Formats: sequence, structure tokens, C-alpha cells
Amino acid sequence: MDKKPYHVVIVGYGGMGSYHPQLIAPVESLRVTGVFDVIPYRMELAESAGLKPYESLDAVLTDSEVDVVLIATPNDVHKDIAIQALKAGKHVICEKPVTITSADLLDIVEVAKAEDRIFTVHQNRRWDEDFRIVKHLIETKQAGEVFHVESRVQGANGIPGDWRQLKAYGGGMLLDWGVHLLDQLLLLTDSKIDSVTAELSTILGTEVDDGFTTHIRFYDELTAVVEVGTTNYVTLPRWYVKGNEGTAVIRDWDLNGELVRSNPDVARVEPKPIQAGQGLTKTMAPPSEESTLRLPIEKAPAAAQTFYENFAAALEGKSTLIVKNEEVYRVLRLIETIFEAAEKREVLKDLNL
Amino acid sequence: MDKKPYHVVIVGYGGMGSYHPQLIAPVESLRVTGVFDVIPYRMELAESAGLKPYESLDAVLTDSEVDVVLIATPNDVHKDIAIQALKAGKHVICEKPVTITSADLLDIVEVAKAEDRIFTVHQNRRWDEDFRIVKHLIETKQAGEVFHVESRVQGANGIPGDWRQLKAYGGGMLLDWGVHLLDQLLLLTDSKIDSVTAELSTILGTEVDDGFTTHIRFYDELTAVVEVGTTNYVTLPRWYVKGNEGTAVIRDWDLNGELVRSNPDVARVEPKPIQAGQGLTKTMAPPSEESTLRLPIEKAPAAAQTFYENFAAALEGKSTLIVKNEEVYRVLRLIETIFEAAEKREVLKDLNL
Repeated sequence: MDKKPYHVVIVGYGGMGSYHPQLIAPVESLRVTGVFDVIPYRMELAESAGLKPYESLDAVLTDSEVDVVLIATPNDVHKDIAIQALKAGKHVICEKPVTITSADLLDIVEVAKAEDRIFTVHQNRRWDEDFRIVKHLIETKQAGEVFHVESRVQGANGIPGDWRQLKAYGGGMLLDWGVHLLDQLLLLTDSKIDSVTAELSTILGTEVDDGFTTHIRFYDELTAVVEVGTTNYVTLPRWYVKGNEGTAVIRDWDLNGELVRSNPDVARVEPKPIQAGQGLTKTMAPPSEESTLRLPIEKAPAAAQTFYENFAAALEGKSTLIVKNEEVYRVLRLIETIFEAAEKREVLKDLNL
Repeated sequence: MDKKPYHVVIVGYGGMGSYHPQLIAPVESLRVTGVFDVIPYRMELAESAGLKPYESLDAVLTDSEVDVVLIATPNDVHKDIAIQALKAGKHVICEKPVTITSADLLDIVEVAKAEDRIFTVHQNRRWDEDFRIVKHLIETKQAGEVFHVESRVQGANGIPGDWRQLKAYGGGMLLDWGVHLLDQLLLLTDSKIDSVTAELSTILGTEVDDGFTTHIRFYDELTAVVEVGTTNYVTLPRWYVKGNEGTAVIRDWDLNGELVRSNPDVARVEPKPIQAGQGLTKTMAPPSEESTLRLPIEKAPAAAQTFYENFAAALEGKSTLIVKNEEVYRVLRLIETIFEAAEKREVLKDLNL
């Protein structure tokens, strides 16, 4: 394909769908040209934003001017729309979670291969600064060898009051935020997963999970806690990362945090015991200030490409996709494993996942 | 017994043993009179503190002036000393963990009953202000109905470099700090335990655990995380307590913290979406300030008796013991269950514990 710019039509113009144009705008070789949504007022919004309103999905798919279909509908119809679009010769970008089951993703990928079209998933949080800082911190051993990672997002606002509360639509926090946090986690090690245990939260009484906690152990001994909550009026840190030389914390979306580590230039100084409740403790005293470094969080190097720069380069045959379908598939398999572990109340182990 | 004050002799005059006299001093009816320790310099320290140095345990036990033996030795010899002391007609206070196995405690309790002597365990952290605040907060429903509790102590100083690193002596953090945190937890609900899962940390390469994480579910649906770490350069909050109307946090031993909860006088206001990394989120936005109360941590009412006031009153037949042997036994059973869950890498469930 050497035609430029590639025309992108957004199917599903809700919160995320209507957010994409500003992500695509900086990329010269992509242009959002139209929208299809089943809700009339959204079509009016799209039209007033200068986008062509399509009267049906079929109208999008039969328009030969359309190169790329961006799917930002509720999760339950991703698969059907993706397969129709691929068969119509369109490239497809799909919002996360790509499908509700891993088997459904395989069906899509099979069609994409047969049709020789690009299919990829908008796992945008791989570009989040907080995640990239943690990945860089691990790679550069700023806290020594990292052996434990905790990744949390917590709010107190419950589950959004729409299809995200409904199981048949792929609602629930494990599929919504879990898919991001787990995707990020799997990029922090090359190791496969040994074991998974999990608890779902159903405090709000919805038919889907309003949060979850999972413990994951990798074969390389890395352990992880991934947690999402919607009933938390106080938040625990976004990231808590333990290495054998220090601990890093990123507390919030504004990237407040620090790295506290042993000072390699100073011999260890015994800490002073502290009064803690009804007892004295040296074990739980802060490490001595003399032998400890307290450092600001180091920025991550800039990403080489944005999601859409990479997608455009892939369309032009100049790059491979950053978000690989095999990776997305593994995350869905992990989500299924988490659901199973929670349901059975078991540690699922020797998973080789 | 109407003789007063009761004479207390301390067996094991290390860190904890030498701390007890200041706890006992305010209680008129108790007096520390002597010490026995196998390490000569400790006997010199005791003597210089005005305490009678006994040349052997036997010398303590055959001294008819001695009413109470306080055991603050390494954990492995608690049982043997306790049984000898009870059989010699002494009342016994024992440091925690009382014994390495729950069966050993039953043996001691049987002797105490047969000899009609008081045997109790110095679970002093029941009197910790942070714990009493949490217990009071739950009882008075300051955060609504509490459904989840996280209790953590974390340091970066490793395991103390003595017998606490050795398995045969009852070393390791689960027996050391775990016994406190689990004892406190079990006092926060009347419910029995349904299930336990756990991971031990062995990052430091000692033969005992250098920390642990356990998830406990009670039949009343309360869930808990209890965690002890000695490789944490940054600490997570000491307490994190979720109720259906708010979340309370106590961050440290200085009782810094807050209670954030919905404002019962204001209708819920939709939060504003925030930019979070590469996306917008309303779900994970802070709850609107208008409909949220941010409150200081409320002090707990003063405890009616200290540990030693209660012990003295029990000696005089005026009070029952606050620290009951059945409770201590249950904590040891829980510790054994945690070791088993970690070893087997299983969720142990339907425990009725």
C-alpha cells in the first residue's frame, strides 16, 4: 500500500472511541475520516467533529476508501465486527480487552492471516510513563535484581454504570483494567508463569467482579501482586518494586515516588531500635540514614514510536507491530487462569504459561 | 495468695527479658526480684540493676520466695522451662511465640491445670495503639461494615543475626512478628477462618523465612492480608482497612493516617475523569471532594488494664486473663496452617479454624 494517508473509521464512538482521534492526529499517514455508532447522538457528535457518519457497519465495510477499522464498541461484539472487517479487506485495530475469551482471539487472528490484513489491539498502557519507568528501573538494575513487583490501580467510584457491569458484555474490572496491568507485568520478565492464585471482589453486588487481587509466580522466581479495586477510598501505591538492593515506589499517576536503596559506597550501619507500639524493634526500624540512598524516580527514555506511529509503520511494512497478538493471547489466557483460580479457590501451578 | 508483692524472676535476660522490668514496675503487686541467664555478662547486668542473680534454673525453681517465672529465652526452650516451673509451683509468663508447635502448648496447659497455676503468654501487641484504633474503628463502624483488612510490618534490616535465623530455635519472621499480627487479626472478628493461602520469603538465604504474605478468609466474608518483610526499603501502610463506606489507613508507628469515607450528608457527586498515563479514567479518579469526608484517625479509648495489671489481678482472683491460652493456641494452629499452605502451594480451605 502506498496510498496515504490511510483512512480510519471508528466503530463505537463512546468514551474511548471519541478519544482516539487525538491519538491519531499527530501521525501524518493516518487520518480519521468517519464514524459508525448505534446511538444517534454520537453520530451527531461525530458529524459536528467533521467526521463522516456511516449509517451502518456494512456501509463502512463496503466503502473502498476505508483502509482501517478501529473497534471501540462494548467487548462482546469485538470479534464479530473484527472478522467482518478483515473479510472486507480492512486492517483492524481493536480496543481492549480484545475478546472475552482467548479462543475468540485465535479465531480473529486466523481470519487476519487468511486475508493478509493487519490486526492489532490498542494496549495503550504499554506507553504509560509509570510502566516504562518500572521497566527501565528493572533493566538497569537500579534496585539490584528485582524479585517482587506489586502493581495496583484503585478507585472509590465503583464500576462505571454501563455495560461494564454486565457479564455478557465482557464487563468487570479484571477484563477492564486487569488486561492492562497483566499485559504490563508480562513485559517485565522473559520467564513463563509457574503459578497463579486470585480472589475476585464482589462487594458492590454486581454480576461481574468490582476488583481482584492475584499473586503470580514466574519460573525465574519473580513474584507479583496485581490488584484492581473500585471500593478503595485511599490508594496504595501504583507500583511497589523490590530488588535485592532497594525498593522503588511510584505512588500515583503524577509519578510521585522514590527509590530507597543501600548505599554501595558505605558499609552497612546497624539501625537504631525504635519504639513501636508496646515494644522496641530493631528489625522493623528504618535502615540507618548513613548507609541508605534516597533517590528520585528516574525518568524512562522516550519511547521510539507511539502506538499509532508503530501501526502506521507496520502498514507501510517498515516496522513490526509492538503489540503482538501472541502477547495479547497470553494475557487473555492469564485472565482465564485468574478467573479459574478464583472460582476454584486454588493455587493453579506448574502452568508453563 | 494474699502475699504481696509477688516476686517475679526473669529467665533469659536478653533484649526482651531486660525490657520487662519497666513494664512490671508500675504494678504495685508485682516485683522483679531476680534473673537467671546462661550468659555471664547478662547476669552482671542484672546484678548491677539490683536484681538477684540465680546460678541455675533449679536455684530459681527451688526458691520458695519466687512466685512467678517470666520466660524470655529463645523459643525452643520455652516449653521445657515452663513445665519445670509449673511443676515447681510457680506461675508462668512466657514470651511469644509461646512454643514452636501448637501441640507443645497443649502439653504446657495440661501441666498448668494439673498444678493449678497460671500460665499466660506475653502477647503485648494487643495493647499497641495502632491495633486498638483499628479494633475500635471496626466496632464503631467508622468506615461502615469492614470487609477487608491489611496488616503489615516491613523493615529493610533482614532477620536479626542470632538464633532468630535458625529453625531449631523457632526463628523466622512468621513466628517472630507473624504471631503478633495474626493474634491481632483474630481479635477483629468473631468468625472462624475458612481459607488460608501463603507465600514465605526466603530472599536472604536463611534457613527460616525472612518474611511472608498470607491471605485469610473468614466465614463472615472478612478477608485479610497479613504481611511481614525484612527486605523492604519502603514500607506500605501498617494498616489498610476497607469498609463499605470508607477506607482507613494507619501509615506508621507514629499513627499517621486518615479515614476517607463517603459523606452521608451529601448526595454522591460524579467524579471528574483524570488523565492517567496514556488514557482518561473516571473509574480510577479520586472520588469527588464534595461527597467525601477526609477525617483524622480517631484515638482508641484507653485500655482498662495493662498486660501486667491484668496478670496481677488474675493472680489475685479479681480478673480473668486477657490473653487466653485458647486464643494463643488458635494463633499457633494458624501459623502451622500458613506454613503448610506455603509448603504445599495450596489454598487450604473449609478449615473451620
